[in-house]
Amino acid sequence: MSRFVMTAAAQMGPIARAETRADCVKRLVEMMREAKARGSELVVFPELALTTFFPRWMIEDEAELDSFYETEMPSAQTMPLFDEAKKLGVGFYLGFAELVVENGVKRRYNTSILVDRTGNIVGKYRKVHLPGTSEPIPGRVLHHLEKRYFEPGDLGFPVWRAFGGVMGMCICNDRRWPEVYRVMGLQAVDMVMLGYNTPFDHVGEVAMDALSLFHNHLSMQAGAYQNATWVVGTAKCGNEEGSKMLGQSVIIAPSGEIVAQSVTVEDEVITAKCDLDMGKRYRETIFDFARHRRPEHYGLIVERTGAIPPPE
Amino acid sequence: MSRFVMTAAAQMGPIARAETRADCVKRLVEMMREAKARGSELVVFPELALTTFFPRWMIEDEAELDSFYETEMPSAQTMPLFDEAKKLGVGFYLGFAELVVENGVKRRYNTSILVDRTGNIVGKYRKVHLPGTSEPIPGRVLHHLEKRYFEPGDLGFPVWRAFGGVMGMCICNDRRWPEVYRVMGLQAVDMVMLGYNTPFDHVGEVAMDALSLFHNHLSMQAGAYQNATWVVGTAKCGNEEGSKMLGQSVIIAPSGEIVAQSVTVEDEVITAKCDLDMGKRYRETIFDFARHRRPEHYGLIVERTGAIPPPE
Repeated sequence: MSRFVMTAAAQMGPIARAETRADCVKRLVEMMREAKARGSELVVFPELALTTFFPRWMIEDEAELDSFYETEMPSAQTMPLFDEAKKLGVGFYLGFAELVVENGVKRRYNTSILVDRTGNIVGKYRKVHLPGTSEPIPGRVLHHLEKRYFEPGDLGFPVWRAFGGVMGMCICNDRRWPEVYRVMGLQAVDMVMLGYNTPFDHVGEVAMDALSLFHNHLSMQAGAYQNATWVVGTAKCGNEEGSKMLGQSVIIAPSGEIVAQSVTVEDEVITAKCDLDMGKRYRETIFDFARHRRPEHYGLIVERTGAIPPPE
Repeated sequence: MSRFVMTAAAQMGPIARAETRADCVKRLVEMMREAKARGSELVVFPELALTTFFPRWMIEDEAELDSFYETEMPSAQTMPLFDEAKKLGVGFYLGFAELVVENGVKRRYNTSILVDRTGNIVGKYRKVHLPGTSEPIPGRVLHHLEKRYFEPGDLGFPVWRAFGGVMGMCICNDRRWPEVYRVMGLQAVDMVMLGYNTPFDHVGEVAMDALSLFHNHLSMQAGAYQNATWVVGTAKCGNEEGSKMLGQSVIIAPSGEIVAQSVTVEDEVITAKCDLDMGKRYRETIFDFARHRRPEHYGLIVERTGAIPPPE
């Protein structure tokens, strides 16, 4: 048996600070049309796909900060993307900054949604693993203030039945944490979708920055293989307002093999025919979790947050 | 600051069924001498390094089965290895089948020990993730009966202060499970040592077997990077009694980079100068667990053994 999902990753080149929501939506719609023309029924867009990656700046004016967030989805500005999805019969994953007001308090999340082929939102995820800092690091021109502008996601790592399988989502830095894939793997996920914005001139330590592309794929390939799931990782990339961000968007099979990869740092669509049943050959043998896992020895993973060395 | 451990992986070619403990110990001693001559103070030997990989056969005679296990360590037969270690001032990791009698019951484990530079055993690990089956699969000539001949390890994943750092052990199939590295990573492990016997003509599905080398490195490199630890993986390899086992023993840095790799499927020593402080650049930034992990969302990892799909 095979359950094919014709899948596209629609990578975006940089989004300038001056670009409007309408500009971004136009680019997304164009790529959705290309994906459809190439046979796709599901398009994975990047993280924060409607604005520039604003956490690189210290923004003290609250109205200016708020302008980067969505307060409704869809909104008048993003509706054309939902309309196009419905018209074409193409679903999508989309990342954006989410602002909600609860009991008079503003809450900010780095969010993604899954939209089905009729244009309906069927799933929402809020990024759990926020990288960076909450205060600017003195001496740096470009920061990474996700811990300032977002709170950690409060929805866990749910999965949804859609596109004929079990679909999961995460966002950017989440992809480096094996717990993320495993929690979804334990829900029999068939495909993990994620978007990322990853500067590679960022850490400031050349030995680490130089390995960014390697680490990007290593984490996603291991997550795919060790959980027998497809992984679709889509970049926003290129030189965005002076920050250089890596591309190499990928579609990865449950074998860990990369089956499609972008080769530019611009808007670019890549596609693959993803057999959701391919994972079975691993799930029923070497990664048959029920037969092989030993949770009685995994306790520290939930009992401890930071690393604690043994006594001297 | 740097804490260097001059480390060797001493890979073994096949061990024939007819080879004695003395034969094996002689090979190990020879490689230990080479490692020492090349500046090493720690040698990582393979899993089940004192016998052929007997779980490939259905063995019904209990005395014959028992003959593959060690009932004491060191024994008269293995003492020369400990003596040599003491003489050379070289520590080692060694894998072997362990038989203990508790309350009149025979208990069998797939075990490794860590021996310090004075020849003393400082740590013991028993393999937790046993692959294969407990009954032979009809129609196969070579089996994988680890679930028959061993019980799952009961010691968890402890770490030990030795060789100037925090040292951890696991064995073969353990290396494919991200939980293994993470539980040790949460104990600030600096180096994970492991041996393996991995047939690549085994699963019977060509699409999987053909990827064995890729999966071998993928799992260890991801485990190293995601936990900012050195990983030393040592194979027993080559054509052993008709079973083809993969080599490519490796020493992997906390960056996930392979810094030494074997190129034969015979007895072969590879070495590297391992800076145990190298992991700091990751532990103090992107993998600062205390700042970034979110265990409140990892519950399923310990609450659930097998994968359970969401309701239809």
